[in-house]
Amino acid sequence: MIRIGVDAMGGDFAPDAVVSGAVLALKHLNADERIVLFGDQQRILEILARENANPTDFDIVHTSEVIEMGDLPSKAFAKKTDSSIVKGFMALAAGKIDGFASAGSTGAMMVGAFMVIKQIPGIIRPGIAGFIPVSESKLNVILDVGLNPDCRPDVLYQYGKLGSIYAQRVLGIDNPRVALLNIGEEEEKGNLVTKSAFEMMKDSTDYTFVGNVEGHHLFHDKKADVVVCDGFVGNVVLKEAEAFYHLLKKFSPENKFIERFNSENYGGTPVLGVNKPVIIAHGASSPVAIMNMIKQTREVIVSDLCEKIKQAFM
Amino acid sequence: MIRIGVDAMGGDFAPDAVVSGAVLALKHLNADERIVLFGDQQRILEILARENANPTDFDIVHTSEVIEMGDLPSKAFAKKTDSSIVKGFMALAAGKIDGFASAGSTGAMMVGAFMVIKQIPGIIRPGIAGFIPVSESKLNVILDVGLNPDCRPDVLYQYGKLGSIYAQRVLGIDNPRVALLNIGEEEEKGNLVTKSAFEMMKDSTDYTFVGNVEGHHLFHDKKADVVVCDGFVGNVVLKEAEAFYHLLKKFSPENKFIERFNSENYGGTPVLGVNKPVIIAHGASSPVAIMNMIKQTREVIVSDLCEKIKQAFM
Repeated sequence: MIRIGVDAMGGDFAPDAVVSGAVLALKHLNADERIVLFGDQQRILEILARENANPTDFDIVHTSEVIEMGDLPSKAFAKKTDSSIVKGFMALAAGKIDGFASAGSTGAMMVGAFMVIKQIPGIIRPGIAGFIPVSESKLNVILDVGLNPDCRPDVLYQYGKLGSIYAQRVLGIDNPRVALLNIGEEEEKGNLVTKSAFEMMKDSTDYTFVGNVEGHHLFHDKKADVVVCDGFVGNVVLKEAEAFYHLLKKFSPENKFIERFNSENYGGTPVLGVNKPVIIAHGASSPVAIMNMIKQTREVIVSDLCEKIKQAFM
Repeated sequence: MIRIGVDAMGGDFAPDAVVSGAVLALKHLNADERIVLFGDQQRILEILARENANPTDFDIVHTSEVIEMGDLPSKAFAKKTDSSIVKGFMALAAGKIDGFASAGSTGAMMVGAFMVIKQIPGIIRPGIAGFIPVSESKLNVILDVGLNPDCRPDVLYQYGKLGSIYAQRVLGIDNPRVALLNIGEEEEKGNLVTKSAFEMMKDSTDYTFVGNVEGHHLFHDKKADVVVCDGFVGNVVLKEAEAFYHLLKKFSPENKFIERFNSENYGGTPVLGVNKPVIIAHGASSPVAIMNMIKQTREVIVSDLCEKIKQAFM
């Protein structure tokens, strides 16, 4: 039995959007896969009733507190011990759930990931991965997208390894091509950190390094499956893509091509390099985004990603 | 009389695209504004004849050499003394032309800008500016877009000043709002450099600092007129926008909205912080791109931008 923990109270439209998203996700799960909702039991049951969903299809862990977006993450995590996020992490640490996902406070999720679940030995700094559409059906992985705005070259090197394992295990890409995001394709281009990272990556035996890619290579897969960058650049790149999507949606609301850029379709952002599956999603997540977050959490659990990463860094 | 120097031999489609672009630009110039073409006189005259243009409408400075994209910039600049780029810079330094523009070797243009024209006293590092469409008729300035991939906080501070002067003098924006590109709107967000730059910019008396903007704010002008970032991030941002344009053009070739993102419309990239107007353009520039590069060079000359920058940094 696989148990997918979901923070029902996390996100701008919680608990409604989360519970509705969980109902949508249920249709995509196998019989031995269950969603465990952490949150206000009564409100969850009300939403399930409104959705004509069967409450016995879900496990509910009642919590009385919520970590708000305005709360100081570490303080709130320490104090709000009956919050959905804290209880979710406790259940994850205890093995009562196999992964935990939330569209709530990213800061509190990070506190839980680092303090409760802890990073995998050998990993210098965990990262968070984002996704970029490169064809009708394929996504490229990009990391880090915001956890580490200042990266040492050896951290970038490791992101190549983490991204490669993710692409292989979760996205099913054999021998993923790892590229370094840079300002020129030539080896000598870049800032001090990417130049030094290139030196390390070009000799990699951990993954297939294919060299530098530039900003205009991001949306096709001719060159790479995994794109490595620091969390500052990755965050800007991903938000710029988001801006384009919103611009274009206004202009052509029902276009399949444009819909490829809708980040709702990619679910959440996995935290790579911690001991158990932790997935964070956009605060503004809709039910569809939550459904995809849950599906993605399931993929990360089923692929045994964290174990594969542990083995690779032993 | 204003004389706009143009490297007729620079760019992937030179001299054809450059000379054709100069013919297009001529229609937009006033009677006291002349284009000075540096390049192979015979080939230039042939193209002008093919375009049914009057050769007396142009000044031509014959040059026998070309700095190629593969040449080492500083070496080529020293050796190819009869090249269009070297002769252009010599004319600019001697006051025979008022500005110099090229779609050729960016490296050689930089050598000329730094070694011949030299940076303005008080400027730590010159930068190059790019443009981002924010409405039907308005462009925002973004800098640096590639000259300095590693920026100190005080360099970012100065980019705010350079961008503000450009927006005011060339784009005609009163009291331009300067923002720092970052990974969150809050003051404490960012990498080490942007955090430190924020501290300097928030007390600026040189320009109106409006705080941080994120990647998803890039394509509207609700927040800023000038966006400051290091040359690594700026380069990736601009090339990502270019990628979107090419994706979208395939999908809807004749769309006005999408055409806003065509970098051809913005002409070249001015080098800000050197003593005279130097403009570089994309190697793949079409005649329309060259026309806009020439128009932009004219604007930079007419606005007396370099003098205004000198005064501001005295």
